[in-house]
Amino acid sequence: MTGVLDIYPAGRITLREVGLRDGLQLVKNFPSTQAKQEWIRCEYAAGMRHFEVGSFLPASRMPQFADVREMIETVEALPSAFSMALALNERGAADALATGVNEIVCVVSATEEHSQANARRTRAEAVDLVRTVARMRDGSGRRPLINAGIAMAFGCSIAGAVAPAQVIALAEQCLEAGADIVGIADTVGFAGPRQVGELAGAMTRLCDARPYIVHLHDTRGMGIANASTALDAGARVLDGSLGGLGGCPFAPGATGNVVMEDLVYLCETKGFRTGIDLDALTAVREIPAAEMPQEQLFGAVARAGPPRTIVWRS
Amino acid sequence: MTGVLDIYPAGRITLREVGLRDGLQLVKNFPSTQAKQEWIRCEYAAGMRHFEVGSFLPASRMPQFADVREMIETVEALPSAFSMALALNERGAADALATGVNEIVCVVSATEEHSQANARRTRAEAVDLVRTVARMRDGSGRRPLINAGIAMAFGCSIAGAVAPAQVIALAEQCLEAGADIVGIADTVGFAGPRQVGELAGAMTRLCDARPYIVHLHDTRGMGIANASTALDAGARVLDGSLGGLGGCPFAPGATGNVVMEDLVYLCETKGFRTGIDLDALTAVREIPAAEMPQEQLFGAVARAGPPRTIVWRS
Repeated sequence: MTGVLDIYPAGRITLREVGLRDGLQLVKNFPSTQAKQEWIRCEYAAGMRHFEVGSFLPASRMPQFADVREMIETVEALPSAFSMALALNERGAADALATGVNEIVCVVSATEEHSQANARRTRAEAVDLVRTVARMRDGSGRRPLINAGIAMAFGCSIAGAVAPAQVIALAEQCLEAGADIVGIADTVGFAGPRQVGELAGAMTRLCDARPYIVHLHDTRGMGIANASTALDAGARVLDGSLGGLGGCPFAPGATGNVVMEDLVYLCETKGFRTGIDLDALTAVREIPAAEMPQEQLFGAVARAGPPRTIVWRS
Repeated sequence: MTGVLDIYPAGRITLREVGLRDGLQLVKNFPSTQAKQEWIRCEYAAGMRHFEVGSFLPASRMPQFADVREMIETVEALPSAFSMALALNERGAADALATGVNEIVCVVSATEEHSQANARRTRAEAVDLVRTVARMRDGSGRRPLINAGIAMAFGCSIAGAVAPAQVIALAEQCLEAGADIVGIADTVGFAGPRQVGELAGAMTRLCDARPYIVHLHDTRGMGIANASTALDAGARVLDGSLGGLGGCPFAPGATGNVVMEDLVYLCETKGFRTGIDLDALTAVREIPAAEMPQEQLFGAVARAGPPRTIVWRS
């Protein structure tokens, strides 16, 4: 049986490529299945091992994720690679459990207002869904992790400020409901490093030796600073996307997820070995650039390259 | 007489707009004198008080700074605003002392290799120039601060890694030579937050109650993370440029100085009051955008705006 420490080994950093899911959430034109498979394989060759690949939804709602099963199989074919996919209801979870996905992501909103607006359920009902999905998993022949991702954990586009204690209480409920791992997401990019330090510190205390996920957006330019503070506070699993793909539904044109290339550079300068070849990773940008010419790719390392006159891996 | 604490008051943060100097250092087309004056006045109206406005060099070498005297006068006309300008030799210092500039910036390289390549002098000769300029100031009727800016303080495009102890020793020499204030500059954007924390911490201990300047570039996406760490380590004077103007002579097309708009947002989320109106500051981007359509303006806050559903000033 695969446990959470098999997918997220203790004592090392894990970076997760979410560009193939969160990065494509808002786009109208999206890469072909073949291009997405090539994207996964090229990032894998660069050293990436964790891929969020799609969402189990009717293809009519999100055609960009209609091929989620093929994406999962693509990751499955790569040794020691792991796939994650969203399941937003029981039907999605059942579909996910029919595949070899390594992690099913359920979303819980940090605020009642966003929970109702986004999923038409209360937060308590969202936690109940985590419990249901965990039981469905336990009764299936499959052993994917159940991940409870707490959206709007650093501030809500509807309700405004979110107290860290409120997020910690929800994280505890999710773990009690059977989640193997919890994520805290700055969905709309409100967070600053002080806030991230506070909440990540509290998560480190709550989760103790268990990993938790920090999912940051660069909507207001704080992505890398927030990631740096999260690492300082003990976070060891961070999300990012190639070229910072992904946006913000409440700020059209805004920057998206933390840029993976810059996140790798950050980790390496801080002494965390990522196992990722930055030049090879940067080269993968050509795939989304060619497939989605209308999308802007962000990131500074991709422009400047790593320093050439020093051994930049500290 | 104006002292260093008149220009950089203790117990509060000072952000300095260097876009009109460092931001224009590498451009071929530059704004008109009138547009630069408007830029200064609009940023002043947004709350900015410190402006690096040019360099005292023959106009034939750097035509973008031919109007440095008018820029200084523009700042002089604004109550409680301060101007800084570079002087790279005795002649430049003499020219600067004939104006009402509030601060003369001398540049000292952290490495012997860059000092020779950039200024054709040894580091010891660069420190001697600081001493000479301080004496020239003392013998003049003017009282500008003498600022010794240490270039390549976080790594050198020629010599590679730079030890913090080497920078601290140079900073001590500059202070002993008569500099009122020292700056540490990540000229080519090699720094990561761990390194910034180490060097800024050592500068905080060296300078004690005296301010020092942290000048960061976003060449590899670490600008805001580095600024955040510098603030944590006690730095209280930080440089930035509107839209991240400025580049890197060794990485064509690279991002430039830390984006001022994002830096303001960072400071406010950390509880440092900047006195700067972020919406008004962001609106000033229209001036360089109109005058230099070929230059890319960076920054995430300018795309997304500050959060609208929370009081984002913490």
